[in-house]
Amino acid sequence: MAPDMEPKKIIIDTDPGIEFPPVSVDDAMAIFVALNSPEVEVIGLTTIYGNVYTTLATRNALHLLEVAGRTDIPVAEGSHLTLTKGTKLRIADFVHGADGLGNQNFPPPKGKPIEESAVAFLVRQAKLNPGKVTVVALGPLTNIALAVQMDPEFAKNIAQIVILGGAFAVNGNVNPAAEANIFGDPDAADVVFTSGADILAVGINVTHQVILTSSDREILANSNGKYAQYLHKILDVYFSYHLESYNTKGVYLHDPTVVLAAVDPSLVTCIEGVVRVQTSGITRGLTVLFNKQKRFGEIHEWSNKPTVKVAVTVDAPRVMKLVMDRLLDS
Amino acid sequence: MAPDMEPKKIIIDTDPGIEFPPVSVDDAMAIFVALNSPEVEVIGLTTIYGNVYTTLATRNALHLLEVAGRTDIPVAEGSHLTLTKGTKLRIADFVHGADGLGNQNFPPPKGKPIEESAVAFLVRQAKLNPGKVTVVALGPLTNIALAVQMDPEFAKNIAQIVILGGAFAVNGNVNPAAEANIFGDPDAADVVFTSGADILAVGINVTHQVILTSSDREILANSNGKYAQYLHKILDVYFSYHLESYNTKGVYLHDPTVVLAAVDPSLVTCIEGVVRVQTSGITRGLTVLFNKQKRFGEIHEWSNKPTVKVAVTVDAPRVMKLVMDRLLDS
Repeated sequence: MAPDMEPKKIIIDTDPGIEFPPVSVDDAMAIFVALNSPEVEVIGLTTIYGNVYTTLATRNALHLLEVAGRTDIPVAEGSHLTLTKGTKLRIADFVHGADGLGNQNFPPPKGKPIEESAVAFLVRQAKLNPGKVTVVALGPLTNIALAVQMDPEFAKNIAQIVILGGAFAVNGNVNPAAEANIFGDPDAADVVFTSGADILAVGINVTHQVILTSSDREILANSNGKYAQYLHKILDVYFSYHLESYNTKGVYLHDPTVVLAAVDPSLVTCIEGVVRVQTSGITRGLTVLFNKQKRFGEIHEWSNKPTVKVAVTVDAPRVMKLVMDRLLDS
Repeated sequence: MAPDMEPKKIIIDTDPGIEFPPVSVDDAMAIFVALNSPEVEVIGLTTIYGNVYTTLATRNALHLLEVAGRTDIPVAEGSHLTLTKGTKLRIADFVHGADGLGNQNFPPPKGKPIEESAVAFLVRQAKLNPGKVTVVALGPLTNIALAVQMDPEFAKNIAQIVILGGAFAVNGNVNPAAEANIFGDPDAADVVFTSGADILAVGINVTHQVILTSSDREILANSNGKYAQYLHKILDVYFSYHLESYNTKGVYLHDPTVVLAAVDPSLVTCIEGVVRVQTSGITRGLTVLFNKQKRFGEIHEWSNKPTVKVAVTVDAPRVMKLVMDRLLDS
């Protein structure tokens, strides 16, 4: 970063934890990477259900900031329900452990979330710093959709929304059609993708290319860095899940990849097109990118909608090096 | 073909034509290619709406057999409605001309369809020659789904169903989500894909690789072959449509590619997995192939369903050579 460059302000919308303790494993890693990235200034965390229910996500967010010694950063609690309120939440505690932090029993956080809701916080920050705030959305998109609906200027005020979400031209991770974050609130995702905001979507077609191996984990274990030590402990459940589900001995670094794509967009290459989300039926939560290669004779559901950027490749070795450097240097 | 090999019996389920005359352009080409392929014996044509309504498809099928001098081959008329009867038909006459044959005005055919319906014909032929009849399905899958529903043995009796349908990991051609034949009757397609029959699906991800160019068309124009001469005349509308829609001066040979994949499966490579079809919402008609790379923790809509083969690559130069050879040699 050039010394005269102002760090990019980011808000991380994250889904860490359900019962007592707090924070899902790769969300934790992503937050630590962001806190240790001089190119960005984390101005707040907003919480959302996903890996755990929202209440636990909030506790986990507070807990992680305490681990990092960054209790100066506000945590704003997000929505407890999907956008249309009608959907049973799908909580992925089998992926990250029931507490969303690999089934550790961390002490309760001392801090509290701010009084302001996540949505109000997002809208206010975007208005305060128009064109300067990037939202990194690591969970279902309910808070972001509510911000879009609450303030017609939000989509314009926000610099960029970098989304971990979607499975573009590949199978999903909840079922063959859908990726977990989009599946968590498909209606919200469709609102966000068609909001007109500057959007970069990083789906599992890309994040599955970034893998933390057992030997990376050993390096974390043997480091004295506080982030490395902390993460090493909570990685067990996540490794077991990957071995069972994907027959791989590494774990996918979904969330850290997306944080780094916000920090340095040159880590990914993108195509641009209109993304719509299926909100019902067997492919509920499926993302379809229209690449504009064909001129259709008829108006369709992708017609006249704003385009977004969708990541298609990632410089995985460079992402891994940045993740490790930033986790070890603490 | 080794001299002692019995030709493979095939039934072509096809959608050629809406008002008076008959047969869509690449259906016509596919039928001629099949009739001129010594490896197969065309034992019947069954008709279906798609490029045109079923009544015109039947007239077009009869007309094409008269052009080919093959009125010995029976034509059985298929369904006029989608499987669930509730759907307005989408007829693609803007692609192939209002008559489905490039807006030519051919004389009415002299022949008539047989009394037996397409579904009854399919079921009876499969039962007569168990494991010996291949269906090449070039339109919406209504007739095939009805055969599956009418006779519980049909899926087992039929040797293979080779389907022109689906857009696997690419945008559709009706809209960004759906390919035309699947979109024509998504419920029927889902019945067929999950029927347990030996199925080879060839989607537009593959057929878009096989392109007849203007110079190929010139070669057809300059040939004395009856098929070449006939096709050259009806190609105008189809070329205009491709120029408008895809900005290309060639035309995709969807149907002939699929006929040739039935004639010689080595022309394509496949992956195997479970295909389900979305039947409602903005991605209605979308095909999702589950490639079995992940073991999901939960039962989903692809669980415990039979697998099918989905073509992923095609030897386009070899297909083009076969198409041209078989159209010129007549």
